[in-house]
Amino acid sequence: MVKISELGEFGLINLIHSSIARYENSRQAPWQKVIVGIGDDAAAWQSDNHIQLATTDTLVQDIHFNLDGIHWEELGWKTLAVNLSDIAAMGGVPKYALLSLALPGELEAEDISKFTNGMVHLAREFGVAIVGGNVATAPNVVITMTIIGCSEGNVLLKRSTASPGEQIAVTGYLGLSAAGLEMLKGKPISDPKKIKILRQAHLKPMPKIREGRILVEQGVRTAIDISDGLVADLDHICESSKVNAKVKIEQIPVHPVVTANFLNYQELALYGGEDYELLFTADEATVARTKQAVNCPVTVIGEITEEKLPTRVAVTDSKGNFIPYKRGGWEHFKNGVPEIKFA
Amino acid sequence: MVKISELGEFGLINLIHSSIARYENSRQAPWQKVIVGIGDDAAAWQSDNHIQLATTDTLVQDIHFNLDGIHWEELGWKTLAVNLSDIAAMGGVPKYALLSLALPGELEAEDISKFTNGMVHLAREFGVAIVGGNVATAPNVVITMTIIGCSEGNVLLKRSTASPGEQIAVTGYLGLSAAGLEMLKGKPISDPKKIKILRQAHLKPMPKIREGRILVEQGVRTAIDISDGLVADLDHICESSKVNAKVKIEQIPVHPVVTANFLNYQELALYGGEDYELLFTADEATVARTKQAVNCPVTVIGEITEEKLPTRVAVTDSKGNFIPYKRGGWEHFKNGVPEIKFA
Repeated sequence: MVKISELGEFGLINLIHSSIARYENSRQAPWQKVIVGIGDDAAAWQSDNHIQLATTDTLVQDIHFNLDGIHWEELGWKTLAVNLSDIAAMGGVPKYALLSLALPGELEAEDISKFTNGMVHLAREFGVAIVGGNVATAPNVVITMTIIGCSEGNVLLKRSTASPGEQIAVTGYLGLSAAGLEMLKGKPISDPKKIKILRQAHLKPMPKIREGRILVEQGVRTAIDISDGLVADLDHICESSKVNAKVKIEQIPVHPVVTANFLNYQELALYGGEDYELLFTADEATVARTKQAVNCPVTVIGEITEEKLPTRVAVTDSKGNFIPYKRGGWEHFKNGVPEIKFA
Repeated sequence: MVKISELGEFGLINLIHSSIARYENSRQAPWQKVIVGIGDDAAAWQSDNHIQLATTDTLVQDIHFNLDGIHWEELGWKTLAVNLSDIAAMGGVPKYALLSLALPGELEAEDISKFTNGMVHLAREFGVAIVGGNVATAPNVVITMTIIGCSEGNVLLKRSTASPGEQIAVTGYLGLSAAGLEMLKGKPISDPKKIKILRQAHLKPMPKIREGRILVEQGVRTAIDISDGLVADLDHICESSKVNAKVKIEQIPVHPVVTANFLNYQELALYGGEDYELLFTADEATVARTKQAVNCPVTVIGEITEEKLPTRVAVTDSKGNFIPYKRGGWEHFKNGVPEIKFA
């Protein structure tokens, strides 16, 4: 008897995937049209004139958030944001959302209003219509959201298309959300401006929908959003694409607030998840064009390679020496983000 | 401060709906195409050549099921079935499914295999492709499923289109699932055949996808699936359509296993939910055609009226006298089905 905690989250996904795949009948109409099934940021299938996208994500009380540390308005925003980020990672456009709320009866109605307001605020930003869902009683808060969207052309960003020789690049800054979580857990920060930046990074991330569209337009084909952490998410690309990756630690963009206040800033940038930035690979010219086209920093942090490395994703210091994995640090954040997408 | 338990489930849905509606911008592209938003069995919007449908439903451990009473294989089946039933109630065809599992780590991997197998078994029956989802850690099991489907033509079954003078009809038998629940809770039944029928009705309901399609083909336009119970679901139709309904109690189809073994069989049929039969209204000729066309019993149980009645849905005995609502009975089952769709 194997417990699912022993199996691990990826083991569990593999188990579910194989149960489904065993009976999958590719001659049946819906299966025929599937472009991306289990194992990417969102599922994708061919519709009449475009590719349809769908993704779902769950936030569990005391696992993904606790009600002491987050305002309801932020929780509403974040629930939608983490889902939109999966559409961004496919280069898609979000359209419709369904919301499923499992709630204890002792919650206050006013808090649910705040939750909805936070969600609607972000939905309006990206023209997303919340068209349905359901409510249920539960001993603790479990929120599941599903987003349905589409590609504008017939092109997607996938995890499985990275090629040796490509550059690895990332939008924005890494580690800011994990630094925000450290602050929320008690690490003292005094400057109110810094507190705001850190809190916002962790609780009100902005999904990179526009950036994802620009990546597609500029010819990028491989991307993932950074939810599990740089090393973990780059590893997802490497696993899907059957390649290796070399990252130069000093090139990783870390926000000045993080470098100035967190001694472990490199660890936060490498292993801290939930930044919801886009991590992508492309040839040098495509990355250069993309850098010009987007409205946020784009930083080259390494390269995709066929070279044999100590690990599938290898991190080097300024002298080119491999830095051994800080499994502890990584696992620490994995425990903080105990949710894994299987589409 | 109002607690959501005081607000009630419909109050909570109204609160969420009004928060969303306040900011709804019908000039924005996704809102323009919405045909059915919050307040029906599934959301619907116009796509290129057809109407797209989406619905989501959550099952919570110790609220909707307990792991002592249900086999994992049945839980997988039922999770998909209750979602497919919402597509059936719209007269649609289910296509793609996303599965979100929040699970305690101490569960056994083998049980999750059984769960997936039960789900896949039903998915194959209706050609549904499970294309993605996610897994998360949680203190108790919470399962959310989302189904995306479409109408084959440009016609849907809605709750809001019932007209005075129409007959009220129902597929199959009512109260069988609630009787099954009574048996599972301890009511002794000795005949293994009867035990099987009752257990199956409650734990492995068959969604009426084919019947929903036939209803559309035969010209029916108003339907709902019976999840909350006959009186509650008919009340949903009456509320949406701004009409009243009169039901003759002796015409309600009750399965012989239930009449023979449950003294409260009328109560089970009126207020017991989760039968997942289709409740629909149409003119006499359309109902007659539908009865010929479908492969299961179709029974006329009453009529839609503008007549002023003691309650929006009124039940009469064989002499035409109104039977007062057994609120206790109803609430009892509402407590057993504490989940309300808002699309």
